[in-house]
Amino acid sequence: MQNVMSKFSDKTIIDSWQKNATAWTVAVRDNQIETRTQVTNQAIVDAVISVGPKTVLDIGCGEGWLARELCSRNISVVGLDVVPELIARAHESCSGQFQVMSYEQIAEGGVKGTFDVVVCNFSLLGKESVEGIFKVVPTLLNQNGYFIVQTVHPAFSCEGHVYKDGWREGSWQGFSSDFTDPAPWYFRTIESWLALFRQNGLELVEMREPVHTKTGEAASLIMMGCRSVRT
Amino acid sequence: MQNVMSKFSDKTIIDSWQKNATAWTVAVRDNQIETRTQVTNQAIVDAVISVGPKTVLDIGCGEGWLARELCSRNISVVGLDVVPELIARAHESCSGQFQVMSYEQIAEGGVKGTFDVVVCNFSLLGKESVEGIFKVVPTLLNQNGYFIVQTVHPAFSCEGHVYKDGWREGSWQGFSSDFTDPAPWYFRTIESWLALFRQNGLELVEMREPVHTKTGEAASLIMMGCRSVRT
Repeated sequence: MQNVMSKFSDKTIIDSWQKNATAWTVAVRDNQIETRTQVTNQAIVDAVISVGPKTVLDIGCGEGWLARELCSRNISVVGLDVVPELIARAHESCSGQFQVMSYEQIAEGGVKGTFDVVVCNFSLLGKESVEGIFKVVPTLLNQNGYFIVQTVHPAFSCEGHVYKDGWREGSWQGFSSDFTDPAPWYFRTIESWLALFRQNGLELVEMREPVHTKTGEAASLIMMGCRSVRT
Repeated sequence: MQNVMSKFSDKTIIDSWQKNATAWTVAVRDNQIETRTQVTNQAIVDAVISVGPKTVLDIGCGEGWLARELCSRNISVVGLDVVPELIARAHESCSGQFQVMSYEQIAEGGVKGTFDVVVCNFSLLGKESVEGIFKVVPTLLNQNGYFIVQTVHPAFSCEGHVYKDGWREGSWQGFSSDFTDPAPWYFRTIESWLALFRQNGLELVEMREPVHTKTGEAASLIMMGCRSVRT
């Protein structure tokens, strides 16, 4: 029972990324991840750019791909990740500011200042850790700031599971043999994602569902929220 | 070309419902539509009830099933449909007020008064006619009123099509042989539905995705919007 329980936890996700940091950096920089290079990379850049930010907080920035894209467009970027190796790679490759910080530290107020955009690009993978990020994000947004989340599209990633929230086994299928110990992830329905926005005082103002021409399906779901003005 | 064009139009939808009004009334009242009796009927009643309305405007009310459910809970219902036979059946079966009115007439201000809820239960099938309804709905809602729409879940109804807006062929598959000339319908992605809410001054405050236990998939998408207070 202990094994079953610990297999699915936010901590297991971090353990996996610690182990795969090097392989991940290679995969991203060699453009090995087809849906990213074909669809979702451009989609998240377009979404962020569309709201015209001067400052962006990139939570779960990884090796810094998105930060580099935004810095090259003269946007000031702060990138956070819990994995020291990924932060080191990001720091070497980009003029943004990078810092090792866990989602728990962020949720506890570890970030000072506010931003035009807070972005999470495929970086909201856990359960409690994600809820903690949603709680703190409204305090990290400027008055008209946006919280922009890109995630796997829930309705197109059921893979035989019942469509409801819950932990899912990870997989490195399609990745090189350098990857090991795939991280579990916490599946959320669209209903649940929207509820997370609402419960934390965020209004969902736009969704984007970039379609992969190869499959004809949405390759991801991008949600764009603002601080709600509803009382 | 003329035939191809006219096959897919809001007018064709109405023609089909005129022809199938009798068969539809039988199908609903004999509980022949499995996803409705198993999932989506209860889901739309729950959604409407959840916001505690005293008055409901049921646009595209058909033979009056939802109106009867709401009337039996002491809610005052006005039901509108373009098909005279369906309005006659609704009127016979329910204490609500029913009136023959096209979506175009509704869009042009044909409805007087405002309501706690405006509901469309699988009744937003067309293109321009639906856009017209969205334009007028904010003027039909009380201050804290809700616009509640139940529709097929876009991501679970692709059926081999590319996930993008467009006309789709109709089908009476699974229905009795009394049905004829299935109506085409205009497919919208979730992104497009949300944009319709936003563009018409409506804030999407809740989504529901009732799951069919038989398939494990969402049987429908319910969207609940309020008049936006964002300026």
